[in-house]
Amino acid sequence: MKEEWNILQILRHSRHDWLNVIQLIKGNLALKKYDRIEEIIQEVVNQTQHESKLSNLNIPNFTSEILVFNWENGNHFQLEFEVIGHSLDLKMFEKHLLDWFRKFSTVLNKSCEQYGDNHLQLTIELLEDELPRFTFDFHGALIEEDKIKKFVDDVNNWNEQMKLVESYISKKEFYVTFKLLDA
Amino acid sequence: MKEEWNILQILRHSRHDWLNVIQLIKGNLALKKYDRIEEIIQEVVNQTQHESKLSNLNIPNFTSEILVFNWENGNHFQLEFEVIGHSLDLKMFEKHLLDWFRKFSTVLNKSCEQYGDNHLQLTIELLEDELPRFTFDFHGALIEEDKIKKFVDDVNNWNEQMKLVESYISKKEFYVTFKLLDA
Repeated sequence: MKEEWNILQILRHSRHDWLNVIQLIKGNLALKKYDRIEEIIQEVVNQTQHESKLSNLNIPNFTSEILVFNWENGNHFQLEFEVIGHSLDLKMFEKHLLDWFRKFSTVLNKSCEQYGDNHLQLTIELLEDELPRFTFDFHGALIEEDKIKKFVDDVNNWNEQMKLVESYISKKEFYVTFKLLDA
Repeated sequence: MKEEWNILQILRHSRHDWLNVIQLIKGNLALKKYDRIEEIIQEVVNQTQHESKLSNLNIPNFTSEILVFNWENGNHFQLEFEVIGHSLDLKMFEKHLLDWFRKFSTVLNKSCEQYGDNHLQLTIELLEDELPRFTFDFHGALIEEDKIKKFVDDVNNWNEQMKLVESYISKKEFYVTFKLLDA
């Protein structure tokens, strides 16, 4: 987190996001598009479940960073996320995760087109009998995809707890998947 | 504020409150009570406008205390609030307001029936050519209304910036109104 957040700021941003949902519902109500309202409600309920799951991984600093990310100035991409699988205590990985994400998002901010329609989807998979798996999937416009390549290829960005599984990088999309190792 | 709040806690409570609204809308959608959905939306939009007005009075500590009040353990009444009139900078009053509210809510918590259906409505009136006016209006069950009377009658609870205008205290309801003086 680059900025300090206080209660009023958090509630102002959160209120703003929720009011957007309410306005969507209101608009569709006026148009009598009741099925669409159900869809909107389902989407927002799903999203809150992912938020709640993320909040239960015992990585509060990482989670806070993710949850306020789209409210921060200076980010040139929209961050979305989902958490799949059972709940897990990831506390021991928090420092590395947070450091990695901060470096990665800094590089991505420098690499993607400003004011572009850029989306980064984080998928956290916590599957039975498998190591926790984090995938960052980007769609948008990169002006310097080499920076991302360099970042992913740099062994200094990986460590005994975070092992790169696979990556694919092109001008309009890329993904990076890593696993967490119980070192 | 008796408790320390972090980003995750605030967002968890806020999410919970908003999901209640979404569930209400969902329930009424299933019942095809579309007029009721419009009312719910109007109520919630009004409430967010009061929140936003309160947040703009430049009394962040007082406002934070009010906004998280219903999320705190150990409060035996529900706090609601509205802000009527134009925006104003109340910064100079913040310390006294916060001190007063903390004392007052402590007394009220001790005076009202635990687990009762107790409601306190704060109305802040900021009208042209008038001094800012705060009214606390209680409905519920008091077990010791004398404590409230004593609090209101105690000159030590008032000061050069906060002047009691009127009060009425009975077993089931009471109100206290004070004005802020530019001392």
